[in-house]
Amino acid sequence: MLCFVGHSCFAADVTGNWIAEIVASGESQYARVNLTADGGKLSGKWGENTVTGTVSQDNIELVLTDAQGKQMGSLTGRRDGEKIVGTGTLSGGRGGRGGRIGGAAPGFASGPVQIGWNLKRAALSPAKPQLHQFNPTDLYGTYSGSLKPALTIFPGDTVRTWTADAGGVDAKGVRHRGGDSAVGPFYIEGALPGDTLVVHFLKIKTNRSSARQGTRVNPHAITTAYLVAAKYDPEFSGEWNLAPEKGVATLVHPSEHLKSYSVPLKPMLGCISVAPPGAEQYRGGDLGPFGGNLDYNDNVEGTTIYLPVYHPGALFGIGDGHAAMGDGEVTGSALETSMDVEFSVDIIKDDASVQPRAETKDYLISFGVSGSVPESIQIATSQLATWIKRDYKLNDSEVAILFGAALKYDITELVDAKYDVVAKIPKSILASMK
Amino acid sequence: MLCFVGHSCFAADVTGNWIAEIVASGESQYARVNLTADGGKLSGKWGENTVTGTVSQDNIELVLTDAQGKQMGSLTGRRDGEKIVGTGTLSGGRGGRGGRIGGAAPGFASGPVQIGWNLKRAALSPAKPQLHQFNPTDLYGTYSGSLKPALTIFPGDTVRTWTADAGGVDAKGVRHRGGDSAVGPFYIEGALPGDTLVVHFLKIKTNRSSARQGTRVNPHAITTAYLVAAKYDPEFSGEWNLAPEKGVATLVHPSEHLKSYSVPLKPMLGCISVAPPGAEQYRGGDLGPFGGNLDYNDNVEGTTIYLPVYHPGALFGIGDGHAAMGDGEVTGSALETSMDVEFSVDIIKDDASVQPRAETKDYLISFGVSGSVPESIQIATSQLATWIKRDYKLNDSEVAILFGAALKYDITELVDAKYDVVAKIPKSILASMK
Repeated sequence: MLCFVGHSCFAADVTGNWIAEIVASGESQYARVNLTADGGKLSGKWGENTVTGTVSQDNIELVLTDAQGKQMGSLTGRRDGEKIVGTGTLSGGRGGRGGRIGGAAPGFASGPVQIGWNLKRAALSPAKPQLHQFNPTDLYGTYSGSLKPALTIFPGDTVRTWTADAGGVDAKGVRHRGGDSAVGPFYIEGALPGDTLVVHFLKIKTNRSSARQGTRVNPHAITTAYLVAAKYDPEFSGEWNLAPEKGVATLVHPSEHLKSYSVPLKPMLGCISVAPPGAEQYRGGDLGPFGGNLDYNDNVEGTTIYLPVYHPGALFGIGDGHAAMGDGEVTGSALETSMDVEFSVDIIKDDASVQPRAETKDYLISFGVSGSVPESIQIATSQLATWIKRDYKLNDSEVAILFGAALKYDITELVDAKYDVVAKIPKSILASMK
Repeated sequence: MLCFVGHSCFAADVTGNWIAEIVASGESQYARVNLTADGGKLSGKWGENTVTGTVSQDNIELVLTDAQGKQMGSLTGRRDGEKIVGTGTLSGGRGGRGGRIGGAAPGFASGPVQIGWNLKRAALSPAKPQLHQFNPTDLYGTYSGSLKPALTIFPGDTVRTWTADAGGVDAKGVRHRGGDSAVGPFYIEGALPGDTLVVHFLKIKTNRSSARQGTRVNPHAITTAYLVAAKYDPEFSGEWNLAPEKGVATLVHPSEHLKSYSVPLKPMLGCISVAPPGAEQYRGGDLGPFGGNLDYNDNVEGTTIYLPVYHPGALFGIGDGHAAMGDGEVTGSALETSMDVEFSVDIIKDDASVQPRAETKDYLISFGVSGSVPESIQIATSQLATWIKRDYKLNDSEVAILFGAALKYDITELVDAKYDVVAKIPKSILASMK
């Protein structure tokens, strides 16, 4: 459309999908906005609110109303290049659904507050999902919302890439930045804070023949008596040969007793993350509700992981492959190696859990990352309960009867900055409720 | 042998196997003693010590010497009916091997102490193992060394019996004493403190069609936020129908959503115990290094359990059957029901672990019962490590490399007086080391 000066031109320009950024105290909030201009009159949606308004010259006026007809916002703005920028008052947060699995929505208090706002055009998805071959040039060792995206992708897209080991060494032996080095971050177009990022792992496979493991049990996993009595061999080697064709790993320099010892391969990704909330920043070995160093030995090929989104684009990353790992990662590292990885992404809009979740062929899984194992158990159990209550329309009594008979726990991370326990329920148990 | 007055007669009488009870401060200690009389001279073993001595009239004098030739004891005594009773000094405890899996042996300090002692004839095993059909008449709800044995059996014997549910109701609906009511205690002839009692569960099967489960999640397993928000239906029924022929349980009064819901049966015993140490006494729902309410959902038919022995005869008991149970027993009770049980017993002499252990078709398993989940994890991991180190002649580095790659944890008990976590290692992983 050719466009000259005049209100009708701006009005036509206003029609379509926008992303609203709402600026008040604290972190920016975001909402999905859809506007339709009919001459100088505007109608549409701002999150879950209904929009009415007017547009003339470069100026716009919007009134937001909730489903009960209550006025939730009064906004004025003007065109500023590709954006629309303004001020006003807004109630009840960004106007999204806000109900989170296992916790309250982020957002403002319900009373009206003075805000600044701007609208930016929502990116258009390509006609069909894309396959991206992504060859990382710089690995990163910090979880942060301030990182520059390495690649922008759309929901539905697939990425083929690789990860280095936790020390930063890739399949060819090239050393990159170390410290549970992550590949990415990937900016997922359309992902907003309050959404859930869905990642399907289509491939997680070792891509070299060597791995290295710690050779002492971490003090978190053993008694003080065991710790002080332990006599470790300082020459003992934790180097492994990986034989994917046989499905096993064997020690490169085995001691006499371990000459015939082998471990089944079960390649997994230790680190799966989005950028943590706001200005929070963590080193690669850390973990939290944003994921990170979850070290779950069922984060394997075929697993789907659900992560809460805290920043536009989510800033998803992966790293820290293990060819095999026992529960709790009790030697501080598992069979650390590099991986070939393929994953596709999706977004569940306006619906984020408080902590990561996952789904395998057999289980629905809720993570609980916290400062203690007991708290992690409670978080994982509660989030799984809330999830099942909602998705299977069960009440608390029904969830209790399921859990008492069929709940399972895995202790996943005992040796890093935080603890991680998962609660899980067999999908076979839920099948009759679909 | 006809025996009249005279030293040679008592001397001949002294030959054979005895159980020594050693009385000093604290609890009695016990040792296995073998004596051979040759005229007035005595030789033999007292635990691991060598015995030399003399016997004349009704009097006996013994000197105990360890493997290095150091004198460990000097004892004098006399015949007292069927026993021999005396005093003396003894070093280094009861003289057994004493090395325990995961901790120090019970016993005296190494210096010589004044003791009282007596010898009692060791019971003779029957020529071949016996099968006992045991029909309990009185169930007990307390773990204690002061309980009177309900049945005395020998190592190698098999017992066929049944258990009531945790509330004390048996297969026929008859109500017995409640509170995780136990069947037994069984006195295992020859079991001494410091031994390990080995119990092979040959059969654990439900024997009635009803079970009952709690319908609220215990506060230990969920966050405070979940707890206060939970809306339980006070009318919700936790009654189950058990259909062993189909291998499932279904709710008797299902809510609409659970009409087609079923849970696979996996009959297990929640309570498996010996009498706790010394004068300790606990209610049936408690648990500890003596076992008790371990609530492990792999304590099923086919599982072997190892329990430390604290009292002569061990005083073994079972109860609290569950037709199925999720990890942690998060509803405070599982599918509580009565069971038909068959088990055989054995003793590993002079070798007890600090906490229970188990073995299934697939795993070596160490329990960790304590006042907190983190401590339970540490105890379970450490005891499993010590066990494998000893039985597979591995060093700490070798155990570490196994654990980092293949250790598994199960959270078994979250809702009772103590917490229980098991650490386990696949037997397939150990197969190459046999």
